[in-house]
Amino acid sequence: MVGRVVPDSALSGAVPPDPGSDQCGWTEREAELLTVTLRLLQSHGYDRLTVDAVATEAKASKATMYRRWPSKADLVLAAFIEGTRESAVAPNTGSLREDLIAIGTSVAAHSREHASTMRAVLNEMSHSADLRAAMQDKFVRHRHRMIEEVLTAAAERGEISTAAINPEIWDVLPGYLVFRSLMSERPPTDETVRALVDDVVLPALQRTRP
Amino acid sequence: MVGRVVPDSALSGAVPPDPGSDQCGWTEREAELLTVTLRLLQSHGYDRLTVDAVATEAKASKATMYRRWPSKADLVLAAFIEGTRESAVAPNTGSLREDLIAIGTSVAAHSREHASTMRAVLNEMSHSADLRAAMQDKFVRHRHRMIEEVLTAAAERGEISTAAINPEIWDVLPGYLVFRSLMSERPPTDETVRALVDDVVLPALQRTRP
Repeated sequence: MVGRVVPDSALSGAVPPDPGSDQCGWTEREAELLTVTLRLLQSHGYDRLTVDAVATEAKASKATMYRRWPSKADLVLAAFIEGTRESAVAPNTGSLREDLIAIGTSVAAHSREHASTMRAVLNEMSHSADLRAAMQDKFVRHRHRMIEEVLTAAAERGEISTAAINPEIWDVLPGYLVFRSLMSERPPTDETVRALVDDVVLPALQRTRP
Repeated sequence: MVGRVVPDSALSGAVPPDPGSDQCGWTEREAELLTVTLRLLQSHGYDRLTVDAVATEAKASKATMYRRWPSKADLVLAAFIEGTRESAVAPNTGSLREDLIAIGTSVAAHSREHASTMRAVLNEMSHSADLRAAMQDKFVRHRHRMIEEVLTAAAERGEISTAAINPEIWDVLPGYLVFRSLMSERPPTDETVRALVDDVVLPALQRTRP
């Protein structure tokens, strides 16, 4: 006689993952709505985008939209995070330089692509403490963990000393590339990423080489 | 008999400087209007600022305002540049480290103070090629010259090799600090400036020390 199978999650008290949700906690339908939002953002810009237009374009009910994202700013931030999600996975090439080039190339591409969305979101952040908290919680903190992971692995391989990892300025690499995308006359190129990694970030990290 | 004094400028064909204008080409009255603009920006924010409100507050005619600054975006960019003007003079301490700390401290202070204005100006830049050109011409180019001056002086003193000066990434120091001010949860502090100069920028510049 086969007894009732009790899943591990029931024993440990953990909530089993929703099969319809991705790693960010969005359902497939929500991810679809965010993709439509990004597309409309890129063609019309932030100012001319409305939550209603996204609902119409995606054949969704306005109630669904507003229940999930109470304001345009919430919706646009979520779309921005979804749009840069694939760049949120730590590379693991086995070489610090290659990992940094991979992160830099991805940040440069995404920040170039979503520059006007980022400018709009930053501007909304001036008015909204909620939006500032969401950006910190759902974006910045995650990126910090990713860079920490890459640097810790490099320290374990003996490529850098852990003393070189300074949490005060952990985001010089992505931060400068985002800055370059925001100042639209000089969007970052592959050469920007290479120069930043080889001539700035690596010499900085290796200055106290073990 | 004393002859009529002909000023040098008349002989050379140069236009004598307007005694009422400062180094940026603004008259004292214009500089005053920009100061009022900055004050209103800081209390009301970009969205609620109007050119008319600045005219009223400063007891200026609207015609004067619009003749000089055809749009709110033009006025706000000019005010931002005026507000950061004192940080536009290259320090000359005789030490590269002290020069970089001085530039970093000044950029950090001004970008913290004017963060919401910068966010609004960047957002307007998405829509306006004129504003992008003005930012490049009146702000970025000037800052580039200032940093070049400091680095060239350091190379002449033998502190760094000219090979270490890379025009592709000349603005890592100010750029990262501006980025930190724009992402409002972590505005840059004195410790940010110190870590950036000592642990990143100097090791990068000195990696090919002569």
